[in-house]
Amino acid sequence: MNAPLSNELLPPFEIRTLPPAMLAALSERFGARCTTAAAVCEQHGRDESPYPVTPPQAVVFCESTDEVAAVVALANQHGVPVIPFGIGSSLEGHLLAVQGGVSIDLSRMTRVVRLNPEDLTVTVEAGVTREQLNREIRDQGLFFPIDPGANATLGGMAATRASGTNAVRYGTMRENTLGLTVVTASGEVIRTGTRARKSAAGYDLTRLFVGSEGTLGVMTEITLKLYPLPEAVSAAICHFPDIAAAVRATIQIIQMGVPIARCELLDLNAVRAVNHQSKLSMREAPLLLMEFHGSEAGVKEQAETVQAITGEMGGEDFQWASTPEERTKLWTARHKAYFAGMQINPGCRTVTTDTCVPISRLAEIIEASVREADESKLPYYIVGHVGDGNFHLAYLVKEGDVEQRALAERLSLQMVQRAIALEGTCTGEHGIGLHKMGFLVDEAGAGAVEAMRTIKRALDPKNIMNPGKIFTL
Amino acid sequence: MNAPLSNELLPPFEIRTLPPAMLAALSERFGARCTTAAAVCEQHGRDESPYPVTPPQAVVFCESTDEVAAVVALANQHGVPVIPFGIGSSLEGHLLAVQGGVSIDLSRMTRVVRLNPEDLTVTVEAGVTREQLNREIRDQGLFFPIDPGANATLGGMAATRASGTNAVRYGTMRENTLGLTVVTASGEVIRTGTRARKSAAGYDLTRLFVGSEGTLGVMTEITLKLYPLPEAVSAAICHFPDIAAAVRATIQIIQMGVPIARCELLDLNAVRAVNHQSKLSMREAPLLLMEFHGSEAGVKEQAETVQAITGEMGGEDFQWASTPEERTKLWTARHKAYFAGMQINPGCRTVTTDTCVPISRLAEIIEASVREADESKLPYYIVGHVGDGNFHLAYLVKEGDVEQRALAERLSLQMVQRAIALEGTCTGEHGIGLHKMGFLVDEAGAGAVEAMRTIKRALDPKNIMNPGKIFTL
Repeated sequence: MNAPLSNELLPPFEIRTLPPAMLAALSERFGARCTTAAAVCEQHGRDESPYPVTPPQAVVFCESTDEVAAVVALANQHGVPVIPFGIGSSLEGHLLAVQGGVSIDLSRMTRVVRLNPEDLTVTVEAGVTREQLNREIRDQGLFFPIDPGANATLGGMAATRASGTNAVRYGTMRENTLGLTVVTASGEVIRTGTRARKSAAGYDLTRLFVGSEGTLGVMTEITLKLYPLPEAVSAAICHFPDIAAAVRATIQIIQMGVPIARCELLDLNAVRAVNHQSKLSMREAPLLLMEFHGSEAGVKEQAETVQAITGEMGGEDFQWASTPEERTKLWTARHKAYFAGMQINPGCRTVTTDTCVPISRLAEIIEASVREADESKLPYYIVGHVGDGNFHLAYLVKEGDVEQRALAERLSLQMVQRAIALEGTCTGEHGIGLHKMGFLVDEAGAGAVEAMRTIKRALDPKNIMNPGKIFTL
Repeated sequence: MNAPLSNELLPPFEIRTLPPAMLAALSERFGARCTTAAAVCEQHGRDESPYPVTPPQAVVFCESTDEVAAVVALANQHGVPVIPFGIGSSLEGHLLAVQGGVSIDLSRMTRVVRLNPEDLTVTVEAGVTREQLNREIRDQGLFFPIDPGANATLGGMAATRASGTNAVRYGTMRENTLGLTVVTASGEVIRTGTRARKSAAGYDLTRLFVGSEGTLGVMTEITLKLYPLPEAVSAAICHFPDIAAAVRATIQIIQMGVPIARCELLDLNAVRAVNHQSKLSMREAPLLLMEFHGSEAGVKEQAETVQAITGEMGGEDFQWASTPEERTKLWTARHKAYFAGMQINPGCRTVTTDTCVPISRLAEIIEASVREADESKLPYYIVGHVGDGNFHLAYLVKEGDVEQRALAERLSLQMVQRAIALEGTCTGEHGIGLHKMGFLVDEAGAGAVEAMRTIKRALDPKNIMNPGKIFTL
């Protein structure tokens, strides 16, 4: 079993130089939108992972696909790495310039290019965030369900195959991306997919780029599926005597085929942190935070079924949050859990696991992981998209504390070993990045990873697209 | 716009020889399960496309992944093409041995390897058919929804990214394949995906192989998502004064977000053919054949909404088929439409279109296509998975009638041009095969097709995996 890559274990990446000729060409074309200012480079050389800042040599703020293509064409000519950057909310070191190069900041590409409410599709530029998108489509009676905790960009979400709380019903970026505009490693612009709901036309390039973490191309536009806002929405909290009971209830809900829209676990520690940060007063016990979408009657029916199940599993004080305000408050609190966890432990960084297992094995892996976490004495909390079999155990380690970090990484490794043994995955939604490269080999096998490498070498022969992520060549 | 490849237009494929040493090695390992008998080779050199039989030089009946790997390893050593074969129900020439080689018949690989009802997953060998699978899981209260008309193998369905009548609710093979066992071009065995519902672990090899039509590897085992049998199922027929009204009703149903499970269009000609073949007495008018899945109350509610919509759109005599027997009879008739069309026009082969467009453009493309078809005087019928924006206009051309065939191909080309202009695809579910290679370039663009070629060359450097399909190298 391959250990995760912590700072000390990062392979000895070779930093490539940024030739003055390329910098001059970038400056000529982009003016002040190309910068080598240390503060800007440092801001682009970090994410929410516990790795130290690893800045690029320059940052270019692009405003169109053509501009991205121009940067990549220059990078290709000079053999310089490019790293696409959205808002920097990655958790696995995706954005670190481990081989130097240019960060392509897409955060100014915020146009909703085309909304087709009648087809339930939208095309957005890569820098549009999920919250912006939902604001812009709400008055059409539509929404886009995928919601990682952060207000990430759609480009970043596509790049990491993100999901979040609604995936149990609506799927992930994999299921909801219909097509892409991609700048390839040569600086050429290609389009994948169409606005049709399905297609059997050739290789599924859309899904090859989704989840490729910037290593095969830069996605500049994304065509997404949208959904009609449900006629009725209802959210509920249910407390449980212990995590195991909450997980058993979840398993039952899924096995019964209840089309639940969200089914989130918070352990005692997460509840405490969220209460603290969001000034809520939820009872301090493990809970499931659930949401139901459908017609009035459908929501009522789902909720009754779920209430019966949670009751049987020892669930207590099933509480409704039916007004939009109450719901928003609860879900905002849930989405802030990551920062709440850090706030309650000042000076800490998180080492977050992201395992996802077949639903019947969920209780088993969570119970074992909780036992280990308790024994470790490290502060931790658990939040989970448990309806998918996916959960995050976040260890809080003091910044710079090598021993704590090593302990957290060891526990993370053990959990991944367990998930793989249970036929699950080391990452449900965060991606591989730098951190999980070792795990990928354990999970997929050397042959499958070699197939990935072969594709990478073929599509990016100079290894300039976010090199050093997912695998080393 | 690139014309479709009809017989005369097939590129001049070079037939590679099958070296005696390879045949000897195959015979030694497989005995009578390796054959060069003309009848068997001919049976493996055809499908349901209108192309003439193009037999492989040998057929090997494999019974395990290891056996497939052994055949591919030999083929790799000798530079000989291999063509995976299930039941031969392809519509686009996928199975024709245009460069010679060995047909790998997987139809004896019919084991359900592992059923995990508690996780709603199953792993099957590639030769299991959709009907076999559903028979074997029914007593667990489960079903697998994807149903192309033919009783195809799951391997073939994965290879062509098949869908069928239930895709509007349950998705296609793209959404329902969790993982694969694949024999790569070197004869190595790799596994992709896991049994977890989602994963962000590296490139999505599963979806790269799904829809790759045997050109990147041979899928030997497939892990699928299953669904609980709905508590209630109800089917209904509704007739319409014309196709346009039926399509407008469909558009409305989808835009309203009704979770309809099936929404199938049959035109007057299809209704006649199906009545004739299945001894039914449906009124001879365009109709929608619909199915609703859910709880008792949910099905009732969906049906009421749909009944109101169809009423507004001029739908007449909304008829229920609530008993399982009636439903089975209707859907069996629907699935036989392809053969019914041929039976009513003896001595004919079909040239079938497969365009899929954004739902709002569906009425437009069907109306124009019907006008053209009527003017052509060729016999034709239309069946459509219209809830997805996908429909098939099948022209019936006399076998060997070059003029009729050319006319049908020209009309097919015009329809594809229209679909692409409407941001749709040339193939919703049948794949590219030989027939739609020209269309693929028009749809995806030369750059995207070149990216596909680059992947193909990298993963199959000797071009032995079903060569000459999807694109030429």
